[in-house]
Amino acid sequence: MNKAMVRYVVARLLQIEGLLLLFPLIVSLIYKEAFLYTFSFLSVSIILTVIGTVFSLKKPKNNRMTAREGFVIVALSWVLFSLFGGIPFVINGDIPRLVDAFFETTSGFTTTGSSILTDVEALAHSSLFWRSFTHLIGGMGILVFALAVLPQMGSQSVNIMKAETPGPTFGKLVSKLSSSARILYIIYLVMTAVIILLLFLGGMDAFEAILHGFGVAGTGGFGVRNGSIAPYGSAYYEWVVGFGMLVFGINFNLIYLLLLGRIKQVFGSEELKWYLFIVAGAVTLISINLFPTYTSYNVLVRDVFFTVSSVMTTTGFSTVDFGSWPLFSQAILLFLMFVGGSAGSTAGGLKVSRVLVYIKVFIAEIKSVAQPNRIVTILYDKKPLNKKTENSVTNYMIVYILLFITMFMVISLDLPDFKSAFSAVAAVFNNIGPGLGFVGPTSSFAEVGDLSKIILSFGMLAGRLEIFPILILFAPRTWKK
Amino acid sequence: MNKAMVRYVVARLLQIEGLLLLFPLIVSLIYKEAFLYTFSFLSVSIILTVIGTVFSLKKPKNNRMTAREGFVIVALSWVLFSLFGGIPFVINGDIPRLVDAFFETTSGFTTTGSSILTDVEALAHSSLFWRSFTHLIGGMGILVFALAVLPQMGSQSVNIMKAETPGPTFGKLVSKLSSSARILYIIYLVMTAVIILLLFLGGMDAFEAILHGFGVAGTGGFGVRNGSIAPYGSAYYEWVVGFGMLVFGINFNLIYLLLLGRIKQVFGSEELKWYLFIVAGAVTLISINLFPTYTSYNVLVRDVFFTVSSVMTTTGFSTVDFGSWPLFSQAILLFLMFVGGSAGSTAGGLKVSRVLVYIKVFIAEIKSVAQPNRIVTILYDKKPLNKKTENSVTNYMIVYILLFITMFMVISLDLPDFKSAFSAVAAVFNNIGPGLGFVGPTSSFAEVGDLSKIILSFGMLAGRLEIFPILILFAPRTWKK
Repeated sequence: MNKAMVRYVVARLLQIEGLLLLFPLIVSLIYKEAFLYTFSFLSVSIILTVIGTVFSLKKPKNNRMTAREGFVIVALSWVLFSLFGGIPFVINGDIPRLVDAFFETTSGFTTTGSSILTDVEALAHSSLFWRSFTHLIGGMGILVFALAVLPQMGSQSVNIMKAETPGPTFGKLVSKLSSSARILYIIYLVMTAVIILLLFLGGMDAFEAILHGFGVAGTGGFGVRNGSIAPYGSAYYEWVVGFGMLVFGINFNLIYLLLLGRIKQVFGSEELKWYLFIVAGAVTLISINLFPTYTSYNVLVRDVFFTVSSVMTTTGFSTVDFGSWPLFSQAILLFLMFVGGSAGSTAGGLKVSRVLVYIKVFIAEIKSVAQPNRIVTILYDKKPLNKKTENSVTNYMIVYILLFITMFMVISLDLPDFKSAFSAVAAVFNNIGPGLGFVGPTSSFAEVGDLSKIILSFGMLAGRLEIFPILILFAPRTWKK
Repeated sequence: MNKAMVRYVVARLLQIEGLLLLFPLIVSLIYKEAFLYTFSFLSVSIILTVIGTVFSLKKPKNNRMTAREGFVIVALSWVLFSLFGGIPFVINGDIPRLVDAFFETTSGFTTTGSSILTDVEALAHSSLFWRSFTHLIGGMGILVFALAVLPQMGSQSVNIMKAETPGPTFGKLVSKLSSSARILYIIYLVMTAVIILLLFLGGMDAFEAILHGFGVAGTGGFGVRNGSIAPYGSAYYEWVVGFGMLVFGINFNLIYLLLLGRIKQVFGSEELKWYLFIVAGAVTLISINLFPTYTSYNVLVRDVFFTVSSVMTTTGFSTVDFGSWPLFSQAILLFLMFVGGSAGSTAGGLKVSRVLVYIKVFIAEIKSVAQPNRIVTILYDKKPLNKKTENSVTNYMIVYILLFITMFMVISLDLPDFKSAFSAVAAVFNNIGPGLGFVGPTSSFAEVGDLSKIILSFGMLAGRLEIFPILILFAPRTWKK
């Protein structure tokens, strides 16, 4: 492996994190917070700038990068961003323990939204801002951001972007656009601004509107109030956030195409159609299931739509306690958690496109078992799916499940019951946020053991980066001479 | 599809079930039971003989069978065996409702061992015998049995046996032997006789020894006493049954080879090594986990070994309530439930060989993602695994999961909580037997709704027949002109 290149790129990325830390620093100045807050962000910013500069002084002689270097850079930069990003919390005392701070920041960057905090409202503005800001950065990806602001890194950027962009790629749509990180990033920021504006115009405090905007954009789910969106008691906010999450769960390339007016191409996307169909189906089924328990049809549809949108996009904002819904409704939500949003969006989970391939493989497999000599072709977006893509999608399921089981086994040493352990792993691995029971929405991950917190943090990273970067980072072969 | 051929073969098979019903009839005479019992078996035996004879009078002109006919014959005969096999219980009143009787008999033939009975000890000897006898018949397979007793059906038997024998096939070991259904059946019956003899010599009542022998042989799990094996309180029985289940979870072809003295070939089997390794590993880990709660090391090892053997072979006999063990031990057992026994044994689950392939695919996938141009070959039994087998094994996982989710969704409409619904589906689909919670070992499936009972019954059949026969039976294409 080209270690010099990995060192160089990661060092440059750490410099960027140093710059990003200036934002919460400014917030701490605006709100005239105690010097310790300003200091906590300043000191880490300086440390990162120094480390980044020292390690990028010597340019690598050979700047060849294979897929392996791409994966290692992505994995390493995400781990280090989360680690360094947590230090300000430790210094300013808002999250005194490093393990907790690592968990919380990883949860932020990976847009998971799981929290070890029991009282969010006790945090300083600057801490709250940084916590939510990580959602915005992590949503589109640390490296996509770097490529957007530092296009000179670009020559081999495709390998890196591939390693960071969630979901399988079909056909040429994505690859044609992958050089335009900047365009996608601008769309992303404008959309975020729209959400913030809508919340602000609806009467939400500007600071809270901005932070919720970050949470929606990254489909992260960190809030500002204990109890997420529920305490506002505002139907308007709930519709804005509900629709906002749904939009950020769509493949950004499609939104770009929509802006270019290529509407036919957009609505020709099988993934989009199924994404909307699944949301509509889930809302309908759950509404029917809950109908007898609601008096207002309006409230019913709003609650169900918000929850489905939040769960499907793996955001994790909540307005109602769906843990008390009937089992059938919960089973549908559990299914949505694993399905997740679209490929190329900020949402987590397996992605609609993969699930779609699984369903097609299911049907094709029945056909070809019944008629072993028949050649069964799977169509995706009306084009035959090549065998290599099909295999990589089905093998992803195998890798996903084995890793899920391994994490579950380790976590089961620490957590008290099946539901808590299973939901904790499902929540971090699909980047959802709160689990159930012991780690449920009314509780937090605070009481979980340190080893479990670390395992779960790597689970979030594995989920966000679609497993392989993290596994390759730890594969012995990667570090062999 | 060649419907005439399907009709003919299924009719012949129903004649065989008519003959099999003479066994419980004899038991009812031996125990001088009320005439209703004798009548219940006699009447169904006569009905089956008549139906079988009428529908097999006209021999099909064209006796061509493709894979599809093979699957349909297997699926249909298993459904009809379960349906007709349940009727005696309805007639003699031991299980008055047809849905319950269908569930119980399906559970028997598929060697699942889930029960709707709350008081097993209330059953007549003949009913108890028939209930356990279905384990013996279903263990090796209805059609394998038919081929063993009616070799004249044999010309196209390979297709049928393939559809009924669990587990993927690798290399030539199985296909070379697949014509020798008779030899395998004799081995099976002799091994069953050994278990019965060992239990009898240990002091168990002959009738109970025979029934437990059937339960062990089929890795089924239907017992004679309320509380399974526990009420006997005999260490000797527990060791005999514990080891017995373990042996019946081994691929029968290997046992045949062992009898032929080809020991090197037997211990060259990767599946066998891993099967024994997983059992040893699980016993060790659970024993360590439980160590503080036991005073006797002997009792600890015996309880753990028995439970691991029962769960891994998906038998379902129990001596302790592992629902009260720590979560880590339960997580291991849960994993074993899905792994199951070896291919070509009477055990259920995914099979060790498939799980082995999944682990190899996991490692290969990491390698090939890190180095996309490298060709990664998977070795199985030291030979390269061909791509077609690999794909069919990975696609099986996709099919398995999607069907699991679908069943879970439907069942969630009926069952009260996540644990009960999940474990009910897992228990039937892997042919284990008791679930947890509402359908746990101290409870039964009695209180489950009728729709759920039918769904779960088909879940057992899907699990036993490895999904495809049942799906193909219901595929619209199968019945199209």
